[in-house]
Amino acid sequence: MKNKNFKRKKISSENIEDLIRDLIEGDRVALGRAITICESTIVSDRVFANQIVNACLPKSGNSIRIGITGVPGVGKSTFIESFGQFLIKKLHKKVAVLAVDPTSGISKGSILGDKTRMDYLSREDNAFIRPSPSGGALGGVANQSRESILLCEAAGFEIILVETVGVGQSETEVKEMTDFFLLLMLAGAGDELQGIKRGIMEMADGMLINKADGDNKVRARNAKKDYQNALHLFPKTESGWIPKVEVCSALENENIDLAWDLIDSYFKETKANGFFEKQRKRQRISWFKAVLNQMWYLELNKSEDLKIRKTILENEVKEGKLSPYFAAKELIKEATKK
Amino acid sequence: MKNKNFKRKKISSENIEDLIRDLIEGDRVALGRAITICESTIVSDRVFANQIVNACLPKSGNSIRIGITGVPGVGKSTFIESFGQFLIKKLHKKVAVLAVDPTSGISKGSILGDKTRMDYLSREDNAFIRPSPSGGALGGVANQSRESILLCEAAGFEIILVETVGVGQSETEVKEMTDFFLLLMLAGAGDELQGIKRGIMEMADGMLINKADGDNKVRARNAKKDYQNALHLFPKTESGWIPKVEVCSALENENIDLAWDLIDSYFKETKANGFFEKQRKRQRISWFKAVLNQMWYLELNKSEDLKIRKTILENEVKEGKLSPYFAAKELIKEATKK
Repeated sequence: MKNKNFKRKKISSENIEDLIRDLIEGDRVALGRAITICESTIVSDRVFANQIVNACLPKSGNSIRIGITGVPGVGKSTFIESFGQFLIKKLHKKVAVLAVDPTSGISKGSILGDKTRMDYLSREDNAFIRPSPSGGALGGVANQSRESILLCEAAGFEIILVETVGVGQSETEVKEMTDFFLLLMLAGAGDELQGIKRGIMEMADGMLINKADGDNKVRARNAKKDYQNALHLFPKTESGWIPKVEVCSALENENIDLAWDLIDSYFKETKANGFFEKQRKRQRISWFKAVLNQMWYLELNKSEDLKIRKTILENEVKEGKLSPYFAAKELIKEATKK
Repeated sequence: MKNKNFKRKKISSENIEDLIRDLIEGDRVALGRAITICESTIVSDRVFANQIVNACLPKSGNSIRIGITGVPGVGKSTFIESFGQFLIKKLHKKVAVLAVDPTSGISKGSILGDKTRMDYLSREDNAFIRPSPSGGALGGVANQSRESILLCEAAGFEIILVETVGVGQSETEVKEMTDFFLLLMLAGAGDELQGIKRGIMEMADGMLINKADGDNKVRARNAKKDYQNALHLFPKTESGWIPKVEVCSALENENIDLAWDLIDSYFKETKANGFFEKQRKRQRISWFKAVLNQMWYLELNKSEDLKIRKTILENEVKEGKLSPYFAAKELIKEATKK
């Protein structure tokens, strides 16, 4: 039997190698533990976290990453429950579900917080479901989620679903870490749209009108036509792909295969024309820049004095009383003095 | 007579005060010279530049800032020529025209490079036209343009038109430094749209279908209807403002007043509901963050060795061979070692 000491004991330089080996063999407990280490706010854990990320990096990348968004009530969880089972049972894939919620640190998180929302999916051997990390962690929520994706891939998960709530910058962040961006909508395009932030529609590679069941069926078909028309007015995507609209009912498990066909044809097209790899490379660079900015920024928080100074300067700039150059110079001077 | 030595001589701590005084009195030559100093790539000029910006800051802000974008060929210059004269002659305003073109450093700039494109406007006493800064300058093109806006305002210009070519990040940057974002379009919505980047339509506070002259009139009216319908599908804006579409012909000077009415009603609404000031404050903070990131980034370019190291690390990250954390840590360590 393998040494699974890491499950009970605090992680150490002795058992970290075991953890990584088990993760790469596909052990979900090891995967969960590794993600926890990467999410840790304890500074000393970051050494282990970096070791894990570095070890997983060469084994990562062989998946497709799908971002999923939509207003609360659109049925994201029901869709993922249904779609995930389709991928596992029909296509025999290993599916990981992650969540990005920048507010979870404050609100203690509703998103995926309650795993029973995906009752059937969470019982599948080939599924891995992970709630949103708490917002308080060192690397920022988005950077943590990128690490979680890598770890899931290294553990052999082939399809990564990244769910986001439509709060703050979360969609832009999820778009930046995924290959395909799916927007779930409701039939009866109108009031329901108010909750979607501007710019999201144009970010979508595909739109899925959910809850097309019962009386809603006709409205959903009409909405599909409206959105398809609106999408034609949109400028061409860089990938050459023309965003498509489909209609489904996650609740009644209807047309889930059409959703997959839509996504699958995107991947065929963008892998063939080179956009897939091009986008991945660009995403790695922008991750690098985000990490770099983040690390510089941490320098500004290393003492209480500096934090107070930052707040004061920021306020003066906000009121138009101080030039940003002057304020930035002041701050950097104080941050770098030994 | 005033001492206008700064016009001929190299700027010095003796004549900088004169330059600033003349600028604030509305002297366009002083304004032009001051912008040149802010755009200078000579490090020692930055001291003067900061002095100018600091002196202008209390006098700035009392203008409306309008960003203007659209694909090449849509008639941006003709529109600005016509719109600018309308503002000066009918409304008795002082109008400054700036350009943001991140590529001008590379391509030697077509945008506003040829001032004769705005032949009549450039001869107006109450107009100030300034081509795009070269991309090589210290502060980055976007930060320079923000400074130029402040300087124009301090010189008494009441309406600042910021033109952008649709390249790279330029629209997002112009959106970030203006109050109102105007998208110029062509009639016959279709192929002409291909050049507009995705996300731009949803950024617009107003759309103007230009070249509605001759045979194009009917097509322009139809396009207006189409876009107005599409805009209804878009989520609500944070400002509460509903983006509007108008039709005009800059060439034949038709409906230029309608364009102004559209923009003017936006300003009335957003000044009344507080969004105007809220957005300005947010923009100042994001400018501050941009300057801060920029200054940190300069630290990474302070030696040849460091630049080479950065390129190598960046490439490894891009190919997925190195973790961004590892690379960022390496870089910062080398940049901060004394």
